[in-house]
Amino acid sequence: MEKVLALPRKLTTKQILEENLAQKPPKKLAEVKMILHNIRSLHNVGSVFRSCDAFGVSELILTGYTPTPPRPEINKTAIGAEEFVKWRHFEKAEDIIQELKAGGYSILGMEQTTQSTPLNSLNINDYDNICIVMGNEVTGIDFEILDLIEDFIAIPQFGQKHSLNVSVAAAVMLYALLEKLS
Amino acid sequence: MEKVLALPRKLTTKQILEENLAQKPPKKLAEVKMILHNIRSLHNVGSVFRSCDAFGVSELILTGYTPTPPRPEINKTAIGAEEFVKWRHFEKAEDIIQELKAGGYSILGMEQTTQSTPLNSLNINDYDNICIVMGNEVTGIDFEILDLIEDFIAIPQFGQKHSLNVSVAAAVMLYALLEKLS
Repeated sequence: MEKVLALPRKLTTKQILEENLAQKPPKKLAEVKMILHNIRSLHNVGSVFRSCDAFGVSELILTGYTPTPPRPEINKTAIGAEEFVKWRHFEKAEDIIQELKAGGYSILGMEQTTQSTPLNSLNINDYDNICIVMGNEVTGIDFEILDLIEDFIAIPQFGQKHSLNVSVAAAVMLYALLEKLS
Repeated sequence: MEKVLALPRKLTTKQILEENLAQKPPKKLAEVKMILHNIRSLHNVGSVFRSCDAFGVSELILTGYTPTPPRPEINKTAIGAEEFVKWRHFEKAEDIIQELKAGGYSILGMEQTTQSTPLNSLNINDYDNICIVMGNEVTGIDFEILDLIEDFIAIPQFGQKHSLNVSVAAAVMLYALLEKLS
């Protein structure tokens, strides 16, 4: 009798959703908060909503002039994920950062600085609760909140261009936390 | 005398570029090839060019109806990275996949299947040279090339939506290789 090997089959959208909901993110990832401060692009905000939903993080905090739902462009890029991710808006990032610090959160800024830790060397055990701050697409994290940030993290890059897209960098950061917690 | 601690300073664009170019990606990452098969969106193609440049991979291969440079929308999203990343186009993905296999490349498909390895469990030592295949934004990797793929990899997700954006998933995959090689 010939041995029949089962070939991999693509999952249907329904199966994928069932599988996603059957899994729980690691506790530390589920407690992560992400701040988007002075982000210009509706598409970037939408994309980060989609990634925050996928990685199961606790909350997305929109500060400064970062646009907030409901906006059609956010909805389109988020494919509706903004309805499932808890979010708040604060005019002043300082207020929520101080509140999170008081609540035991470490504030990590994604930024290329003179003292940034490469993301692949980041030791997640150095922190209890993590809040990640992402800054403007062009100018990065604004100077007015720079000194509220505990540690800076940078994604190692080797190319001719100077950075990854902010929503891509946000997703890479969230995945890195998952990989380190696995 | 008061002790003065040096505060982190943001790097200028010039400093970031110098830092990027002074670093080399791990050899195995530098040899990675990525195939985008039947991708619809110019923005996704541009975004993947930008990420391929950032992570220093060997080549981006555009197959099927995936749009190719020069296109203003690709250029804008790639912020010009398509001029630095080696790329080729093949009408039929099968041709280049067979050529890469003959050259010792393992073909890994990013897809949620009945037999996908979670990306965080992927053991990179199982492979010499790696070629990653990304499929269409809605339908994933087309059936006609599914059986040319050696192993399927899926990014663990926990949300209410069924997937990450394809360009985000591509960047997460490239970063995961970097993290595993570090």
